Amino acid sequence: MSFQADVVTLFPELFPGPLGASVIGRGLSEGLWSLRATQLRDFATDRHRTVDDTPAGGGAGMVLKPDVLAAAIDAVSPAGDERPRLLMSPRGTPLTQARAEQLATGPGAVIVCGRFEGVDQRVIEARQLEEISIGDYVLAGGEIAAMVVLEAVVRLIPGVLGAAESHQEESFGDGLLEYPHYTRPQVFEGRDIPPVLVSGDHKRIARWRREAAETLTRARRPDLLKR
Amino acid sequence: MSFQADVVTLFPELFPGPLGASVIGRGLSEGLWSLRATQLRDFATDRHRTVDDTPAGGGAGMVLKPDVLAAAIDAVSPAGDERPRLLMSPRGTPLTQARAEQLATGPGAVIVCGRFEGVDQRVIEARQLEEISIGDYVLAGGEIAAMVVLEAVVRLIPGVLGAAESHQEESFGDGLLEYPHYTRPQVFEGRDIPPVLVSGDHKRIARWRREAAETLTRARRPDLLKR
Repeated sequence: MSFQADVVTLFPELFPGPLGASVIGRGLSEGLWSLRATQLRDFATDRHRTVDDTPAGGGAGMVLKPDVLAAAIDAVSPAGDERPRLLMSPRGTPLTQARAEQLATGPGAVIVCGRFEGVDQRVIEARQLEEISIGDYVLAGGEIAAMVVLEAVVRLIPGVLGAAESHQEESFGDGLLEYPHYTRPQVFEGRDIPPVLVSGDHKRIARWRREAAETLTRARRPDLLKR
Repeated sequence: MSFQADVVTLFPELFPGPLGASVIGRGLSEGLWSLRATQLRDFATDRHRTVDDTPAGGGAGMVLKPDVLAAAIDAVSPAGDERPRLLMSPRGTPLTQARAEQLATGPGAVIVCGRFEGVDQRVIEARQLEEISIGDYVLAGGEIAAMVVLEAVVRLIPGVLGAAESHQEESFGDGLLEYPHYTRPQVFEGRDIPPVLVSGDHKRIARWRREAAETLTRARRPDLLKR
């Protein structure tokens, strides 16, 4: 069974959007994964189709109502659904390549996109939403963040990347940032490709790349070496 | 002068895409920021419109050619353009809320979206591209990452968020994750809103929120407290 993604959002029309392009979109057309976007507002119960309300205790912004969100989640992910339920939120656990790999081997994901100030804490607890963050910055909503999660995960599903687009050697694969790349022309604006890379000596090339990856990681992301 | 964004990509049709929705899209229509997406392939010089070539030294994947990318960058960002030139890359410096705030006060950004295995290192150096990463995971290309950067930045431009959507109290604003939110109904599936939040005592509410934010940050992101 292929990877099944469900997205709960106030902007279902944004999907698949960029996920419909490139190898990710090809994988979608070929049925290697599926995507359904559900309009949260359809689960509002009043005639104004209200999805949010003012925060208890005061303050700016609006909060997504727990009852409406719970109804939407229950509709797309009924009891027995084994897919993890993710809530895109800057308060969440940071997405890592390891987590993406884990999700890619599973049955899919239910992704809730927040908007406004946030989501009522009680629905997070009652529906066991796993808050997940794509980075230490704030977005206007969870939609683009959900696309990030799906792109990171879907490219790891077998068959999505062609053989020519291997992900064996890439950043984070071995805990290092990737070494620098070069291609033709041999000389670009007076700058040469490093001679070792055109030497044909595969052992030296591998050593040069390893050293370049280590030097870059030490300079830019010493935190990765400590993990 | 409003914030001017230029994106260099093999998929210009994906823009504005999700950036055309919500407050971000309203800001675009109202001229609070502008967006131009440029097709990298238009700067190829051979009749096959080649933009990539095999990596020097061997290995999987393809590398974006330095000459074609340089020509595209020079076309959208001629000498004298004071906007930073960002290259979306998992090897880059992580995007932070502080960097988003800095970009939002500037004249705009030129964003290069990578694809394939990577970009020739010489064009990164020759055009002073600032490699920037949205998180420790690998995507299929830089397009959705560029949308993340633009959404994080554009929402901080004065006038984009309405007065009701303040970003005064949110995650990372004071180095902490945000406290939990609650809204009506008072009881949801047997779960109450914490009594303090409906007490009307603003001092106690502020203290509760501060303590909740600290507890959450300590539990989920102790790394933020060490910064």
